[in-house]
Amino acid sequence: MIRVAIIGASGYTGAEAIRIILRHSGAKLTYLTALPEECGAVADVFPQFKGRCGLEIEPLDMEEIGGLADVVLCCLPHKVSMGFVPKLLEVGLKVIDFSADYRLKDASVYETFYQEHTDKANLAIAAYGLPELFREQIVGADLVANPGCFPTGAVLAIAPLLKEGLIRTDSIIVNAVTGSSGAGKNPSEKFHFPNMNENLFAYGIGVHRHMPEMEQVAGEVAGSNVQILFQPHVGSFDRGILSTVYSQPTQDISNERLLKLYNDFYKAEQFVQMRTGAPAVKDIVGTNYCHVFVANVKGRIVAFSAIDNITKGASGQAIQNMNILFGLDEAEGLT
Amino acid sequence: MIRVAIIGASGYTGAEAIRIILRHSGAKLTYLTALPEECGAVADVFPQFKGRCGLEIEPLDMEEIGGLADVVLCCLPHKVSMGFVPKLLEVGLKVIDFSADYRLKDASVYETFYQEHTDKANLAIAAYGLPELFREQIVGADLVANPGCFPTGAVLAIAPLLKEGLIRTDSIIVNAVTGSSGAGKNPSEKFHFPNMNENLFAYGIGVHRHMPEMEQVAGEVAGSNVQILFQPHVGSFDRGILSTVYSQPTQDISNERLLKLYNDFYKAEQFVQMRTGAPAVKDIVGTNYCHVFVANVKGRIVAFSAIDNITKGASGQAIQNMNILFGLDEAEGLT
Amino acid sequence: MIRVAIIGASGYTGAEAIRIILRHSGAKLTYLTALPEECGAVADVFPQFKGRCGLEIEPLDMEEIGGLADVVLCCLPHKVSMGFVPKLLEVGLKVIDFSADYRLKDASVYETFYQEHTDKANLAIAAYGLPELFREQIVGADLVANPGCFPTGAVLAIAPLLKEGLIRTDSIIVNAVTGSSGAGKNPSEKFHFPNMNENLFAYGIGVHRHMPEMEQVAGEVAGSNVQILFQPHVGSFDRGILSTVYSQPTQDISNERLLKLYNDFYKAEQFVQMRTGAPAVKDIVGTNYCHVFVANVKGRIVAFSAIDNITKGASGQAIQNMNILFGLDEAEGLT
Amino acid sequence: MIRVAIIGASGYTGAEAIRIILRHSGAKLTYLTALPEECGAVADVFPQFKGRCGLEIEPLDMEEIGGLADVVLCCLPHKVSMGFVPKLLEVGLKVIDFSADYRLKDASVYETFYQEHTDKANLAIAAYGLPELFREQIVGADLVANPGCFPTGAVLAIAPLLKEGLIRTDSIIVNAVTGSSGAGKNPSEKFHFPNMNENLFAYGIGVHRHMPEMEQVAGEVAGSNVQILFQPHVGSFDRGILSTVYSQPTQDISNERLLKLYNDFYKAEQFVQMRTGAPAVKDIVGTNYCHVFVANVKGRIVAFSAIDNITKGASGQAIQNMNILFGLDEAEGLT
Repeated sequence: MIRVAIIGASGYTGAEAIRIILRHSGAKLTYLTALPEECGAVADVFPQFKGRCGLEIEPLDMEEIGGLADVVLCCLPHKVSMGFVPKLLEVGLKVIDFSADYRLKDASVYETFYQEHTDKANLAIAAYGLPELFREQIVGADLVANPGCFPTGAVLAIAPLLKEGLIRTDSIIVNAVTGSSGAGKNPSEKFHFPNMNENLFAYGIGVHRHMPEMEQVAGEVAGSNVQILFQPHVGSFDRGILSTVYSQPTQDISNERLLKLYNDFYKAEQFVQMRTGAPAVKDIVGTNYCHVFVANVKGRIVAFSAIDNITKGASGQAIQNMNILFGLDEAEGLT
Repeated sequence: MIRVAIIGASGYTGAEAIRIILRHSGAKLTYLTALPEECGAVADVFPQFKGRCGLEIEPLDMEEIGGLADVVLCCLPHKVSMGFVPKLLEVGLKVIDFSADYRLKDASVYETFYQEHTDKANLAIAAYGLPELFREQIVGADLVANPGCFPTGAVLAIAPLLKEGLIRTDSIIVNAVTGSSGAGKNPSEKFHFPNMNENLFAYGIGVHRHMPEMEQVAGEVAGSNVQILFQPHVGSFDRGILSTVYSQPTQDISNERLLKLYNDFYKAEQFVQMRTGAPAVKDIVGTNYCHVFVANVKGRIVAFSAIDNITKGASGQAIQNMNILFGLDEAEGLT
Repeated sequence: MIRVAIIGASGYTGAEAIRIILRHSGAKLTYLTALPEECGAVADVFPQFKGRCGLEIEPLDMEEIGGLADVVLCCLPHKVSMGFVPKLLEVGLKVIDFSADYRLKDASVYETFYQEHTDKANLAIAAYGLPELFREQIVGADLVANPGCFPTGAVLAIAPLLKEGLIRTDSIIVNAVTGSSGAGKNPSEKFHFPNMNENLFAYGIGVHRHMPEMEQVAGEVAGSNVQILFQPHVGSFDRGILSTVYSQPTQDISNERLLKLYNDFYKAEQFVQMRTGAPAVKDIVGTNYCHVFVANVKGRIVAFSAIDNITKGASGQAIQNMNILFGLDEAEGLT
Repeated sequence: MIRVAIIGASGYTGAEAIRIILRHSGAKLTYLTALPEECGAVADVFPQFKGRCGLEIEPLDMEEIGGLADVVLCCLPHKVSMGFVPKLLEVGLKVIDFSADYRLKDASVYETFYQEHTDKANLAIAAYGLPELFREQIVGADLVANPGCFPTGAVLAIAPLLKEGLIRTDSIIVNAVTGSSGAGKNPSEKFHFPNMNENLFAYGIGVHRHMPEMEQVAGEVAGSNVQILFQPHVGSFDRGILSTVYSQPTQDISNERLLKLYNDFYKAEQFVQMRTGAPAVKDIVGTNYCHVFVANVKGRIVAFSAIDNITKGASGQAIQNMNILFGLDEAEGLT
């Protein structure tokens, strides 16, 4: 049994990781930590686990953690995470990091959007944990940068096109709508129920931290620079991201060819499923699946993907990465 | 034109009062106030009023208000309100108070649930502003205590039974479900969208401040002491209260007689409408109407009412009271 | 591996049963049937199963089913089910029936609410499948009548009180609110999204088919006749039932004693969890758990329970029963 | 008082038109019609009007209607409407038609998306009723083609850019999300609450009937051919459309210049309000307002608009048109 620790277990991604590992046949939770004020019995912090999990969430003890776990899911916020990851690696733990701290391979891009990067050594060795596109880099890694939810959805929607060089890389538009859980657990005016309910609006207009990550990942798939205009929105539903991606083909391409391309590209991927029409958020909620569709519309290509932002967009993908790291069935705990 | 001031205009009841008065043919807004940090153009505080209202919400100036308005809608919280009302009355304003401070005629009951009552003189002269039951007391009043949303819904559901002495007054049960706007505008963990959405739960188990108000009002209608067990719940919708009221008849009573009783009792009341089946929250959202139904079920009586907690349960009823105070058509601005 | 067939697999309870069995380590789906017009690949009928289930839903072949399965989950409608169950039993299958056809031990009560009962022989041998209360009757049964969702929630909320004779049995009131999935999969005006959304209303006023079932089950627990006034409502959420049950104690009883009573009564029951305050629907959605709380309010007892109407209220409970029938861990597939 | 008839009054746009006219000081409802099976008292067809409207919805009598009204709001479906409009015009009524039948000036485009056009004579004289862009054509018209909801939102979002020739007209992308009321009143699987709730998906992939209307209107504003790629989505909320429109500027253009351009363009328009950030659907629900914002993002222009699909996208705009036709204050009944 792989022993799993979760640092920052008191948020939504922590809860989802707990839920998945509780039914994982090859892994068990051994150590859960959070800020002192958010500690307590798992069943008190998350009442949905009453009777299902007897563990405590405790303040982090860096002395102890090395002996308690084989792998750490590090659910700390951006900028905080890189203060802990080096020490976790030092004591011999595998680390799957949920923050943006190890996702951007070019530290200077990170520094534009966040702050000075204080752990460039490990940045250099981090694998980007999107298994469908970079599986071979994940196997054997000590540190996995778990992808952002928006990049996961957007890039899976167009990876076959990027790979084959079938679309112009200077004019991709990603229009995405996320459910409100993407905002995290802290109450705010915007996400106060009487404001958010029956509502829908764009945010992050102009710049969004997920944009450079999206461009980096898309660029790696394409083998060239990619420019993406990314516009996120938030809607009055809990979970899920629907990405609608617009691009210009570099050649005439029929719907039949598009679908064959996608079906071939993803045929070995359990967690990416081709739909025969528009994917719906509700079909993937609570799962690690990404549903995809693509069509040529008036000479442009419109690609769609739907993922659960907390599962395939965060904790589910982290467990998928963990399964790869430890040589388990990649889908264990996730189906 | 009646000049209307709103104190505490930055919350949900303030917004609803503004919305109603903007289409009122006999009244106009002249002065809006809030705590300094919540001031600003109405169209900034409430973007739904962009292009519809050019007023500013300003810090309250007690020196000025007497000359600026004929009537004040006082939307301050419980316990705060009674610090302002005496001064507003002194400068000659009519006051419609939204808090609980002037609703409980017995100050000692108030003091059990809130704190020491500091304005007993005006408590003695306040009219309880539920027009369908106490219209004659409102006419000519200087101070109107605008009823709580739960008492409004619950008592309208059973007033005909209470009036005719047809139910036992020691065993009434009020089960109510309110929309989330009842919680007010301040973000909290409970009302954070990802928590409140797709949720439903009881609260205030054991004691609820609306209970004594309900018992007082029901008692006045019945002409005797009334005991009510009141259990509120909150559901994942914005606006509305559905009250389901269970009682024991003192005699055998048929559905036909029940419906005739209710139809007669409310036939002159524009804002109480009898339904022929279960009232639905959605039919009354955004209106000042109360929809009612009643049935004899297995020898007990089950009565239902639906109101909008912010309109008939607060600001709409306040304007209805204002119309009465100033001799206008009671429905002006409300249909 | 237990081989499981589902008859009537194309509805919501069918989908939930499929979901649970897919992760069950001791059972596998072998035969899924539906009306011809609702047949097709599981992944087409329920897109959420794309990549997760390769089975087909086929028209029922009674000749074949005996050889294909060990147990049948019979998800047919009331009145239809009893036309199939005798034949399923004859070919040696264990049957867990989701309809009301085998729940009411007194056929004449059934006939009042439904129609003539055509399989009284098997009615006599059916076990009522609420494991927390009737586990010993389920072990060894050939036919299990899977309980209704409302009776499950309501009776679990007050079983400790009934068992100990602590409440009057002539005046119990069950106020319940269910999510919209309780209405099943067929579109209707009432459940059309623009009507149901942001709505809440009562239904089944006067009589409800779940009432006699509730009274029968409560009566068995109490060991005497029980009268229940049951009023269901439906709210604008997908899944869950919140039951608020009002009763009169037969003696003075403190909150401490109530909680001790409940904690003792349910301490061995994994799927019933005591809360320390109001249970919330969201905490049990998608799970087989029932969350319970109870309080003495002004001399009456108010008990609360929350269950998922499709899981503990239907398919989860059916799998729990299946686990009992086959001597497996009762929680297998359900945690 | 203008006498208003509504044909097809039993749907959502009919209800919204009734709601608006009930508070209109210069118009009154005189004749409401629907298919025989949808007739009845307004308060029965739409319980929200109990006590607010005493009219009946009756089967249409073409003999009578000429004498009963001055103007007809024709809320019939596409293809049906043009069978009635000529007769309504013949008897001297002004007609505001909600269908697509008189929107597409080129009958052959209509015939591609619908069927043979049987009233080309009146098609030639119909004014396109988007007052902010074509007010002068509406004044004096006998027949107004009330715009589609999607074209209204999309074109208002980019009209200033089109007018000034600031964007390329061959590569405009309109990504829009509508609330579920856009689907109309008839129940369907897609809009069954348990399916639509917590959901979001694209539809009309490839072709959408609103696309040619959008291109026509945008083309008139631009004074040249315009190509639009339009992708609609539907989300789990009742009312509102959020349009996110992507375009390529023909020259470098700063945010300051963009905002000045828009503010100038719309400064006289009461119903178009510029926001200083992303417009939110909730701010315009139930109103005739369109909230707009625009920004230069990485060298592209992203424009946003939010409207209520039933009000500014249908019935509110129709009343705005009616006010223009009869020389009333354009905002009467709408603020």
